Parts: sequence; structure tokens; C-alpha cells
Amino acid sequence: MRKVILYIAMSLDGFIADEFGGVDWLVGQEDTSEEQGSYARFIKTVDTVIMGYTTYHQVTTELAPGNWPYKGLRTYVLTHKYKKTEEDIIFTDKNIQELVTKIRMEPGKNIWICGGANLVNQFMKEDLIDRYHITVIPTILGKGIPLFHDNNSSIRLKLISSESYNGMIDLIYERRE
Amino acid sequence: MRKVILYIAMSLDGFIADEFGGVDWLVGQEDTSEEQGSYARFIKTVDTVIMGYTTYHQVTTELAPGNWPYKGLRTYVLTHKYKKTEEDIIFTDKNIQELVTKIRMEPGKNIWICGGANLVNQFMKEDLIDRYHITVIPTILGKGIPLFHDNNSSIRLKLISSESYNGMIDLIYERRE
Repeated sequence: MRKVILYIAMSLDGFIADEFGGVDWLVGQEDTSEEQGSYARFIKTVDTVIMGYTTYHQVTTELAPGNWPYKGLRTYVLTHKYKKTEEDIIFTDKNIQELVTKIRMEPGKNIWICGGANLVNQFMKEDLIDRYHITVIPTILGKGIPLFHDNNSSIRLKLISSESYNGMIDLIYERRE
Repeated sequence: MRKVILYIAMSLDGFIADEFGGVDWLVGQEDTSEEQGSYARFIKTVDTVIMGYTTYHQVTTELAPGNWPYKGLRTYVLTHKYKKTEEDIIFTDKNIQELVTKIRMEPGKNIWICGGANLVNQFMKEDLIDRYHITVIPTILGKGIPLFHDNNSSIRLKLISSESYNGMIDLIYERRE
């Protein structure tokens, strides 16, 4: 079955962005232009991206304006604002449970929950994430936007694999039954 | 030189205890009585423990009453309450900067910052930690006592090593210069 995967980077103290939303610290411990293989491998396993509107807005206006980085994938942007579908970008206000059920009924690859933190925590609360793929950045950020919010229930995980490159470490977990 | 090491376990979402201070979730993904080698190896590298009073109180009244687990190590308990030194347990209200300077002037092995979170964050704020040895438990706890508090400045780290066993993973970092 198509898995719902949270693939996201956080600092050791659990932040996904600094207090101003900045992500320029999302780097390894040494300056290198070497392509890290983790993202390249991951992206081949998904064909669908789900993100919140704030993330969409940041990508299109700040991180990669005019150069949509998820070409070839179908992207769902969750928002209550009505926006017309653009190519493979679908704006929807469906609730996430229904959206995931609908996507899962169609054949395809895995589904990437891309962020931000509000969206991620809605998915966690509804226990919709099959796999947590967290890249831990070698930085204690001190303050910023936390990945995890207070949730009512704890989630027991199973470590599937770990891999480090340039001081970053990818931790992959699935739910423990 | 004797290193100051934070060696502590946290959930993937950064908690060191549940909201009631409980730590019974600090386990791997499978029930096993197998001794994990990480602690046994670590403890040989230190001869000094520094902890806060709350941690001391929890250890002596709840976690290991009548069976002090740090025998053979010199323990400093930071507290403003006066208490008489018991064998190798020294109660002190020295400020941590002075305490660390004093200990470092004496010959010996590394120094373990054992917790709790308040003490750890004082050490981080004063940039007194040479090595972060964090055991990530395969659980999203949802809520509890966070390891990291808001600090003013970020700390750039270098991943020295990682090792996993039974779903737990030890991440060892030192400061990046």
C-alpha cells in the first residue's frame, strides 16, 4: 500500500525553521557542493506531495521563485482559500483523513508530507503517518518553529534505518504495532 | 583535557520525562533483558557526575532508593539547600562555571552532566558542554519535560558518531569551531 511519509529536517532541538521561518541553517557540518544522495533516493519513491499553504507560499516566493521544485509530482496544497489548480498543483480544503483515503485508493507511489509544522501535527494527531523520515541537522538552534507540537497521545516507533552524511543523520521510523 | 559530557536520553520529540516526571518509556523497541553496551562503555570514561537536586531526589526516592547507582563516581548535586556530604556525594551551591573550572583543574576522567533539563540548559547557556551524547528513544512522547529550552544563541555541532541498538540510537556531537 502507498505509505504516507513525513520527510523533514529538524535541528537536534527539534526546530524546522528559525523564528523568522529561515532555513539557511539546514546544512551539514562542512561546506560541500557534493550532492547528498538521501533526497535523490527518497524522491524516487514518491509521486505525491502534501503541504500547507504557508510552505507553498514560502517555496514559491522565497526558496525557489519561478522554479517549482516538485515538478513531475502531484502536489496537494491544503488551504481554505480558493485557488485554481495549476498543472500538477491542486489546492484543496478537504479534510486530511478524506484526502489521504482518496489518494490511497488510486494506484501510485508513496505520499510525502512535506510540512509545515501545523500540517504535520494534524497528520500525527490523526495517526495518518506511516513512516517518519527525519533528517537531524547538526545544530542546536536555540529557538524557532518546532516540528512537534503537544499531542495528546504518544506514538511508539520502530527504528528502520539510520544513515549519516556530512554530519546530518537520517532516522527512519515506522509505527510499532 | 577532561571533557564535560551531556549524556541523556530523549524521545524523538525531545522529552526527557513524561509530564509527571516518569521515565518508564525510556526503553528500546523490543522487550529484552540484553544489556545494552552503550552505558557500560560510557560510564568507564567518566569519574564525576553533576546533577540537579530534582534528579538526585528522583533517583534516591523513586528510581533506585537505597541503591545509589553512581557508586565509585564523585557526584556533585547542585542545590541551594545545605546538605552534608555523603561519601562521594557533594552538595554544592557553587555556580556551574566555577564548579567546572575547579573540577577541570584536578586530574581525572570526563565529567557527566546527568540532568535534569534546568541544569542542562544552564550548562548550554554558558557553553560549558564539550560533547552531546544523546540517546534517541523510538517514541514520540507527545508531551512531557523538554530537554532543550529556549536559548539565545544557536550551537553548531559536528556529528562524531552514531550507533543504534534495539531501536535506540546514540548520537554523539561536539561543538563545531
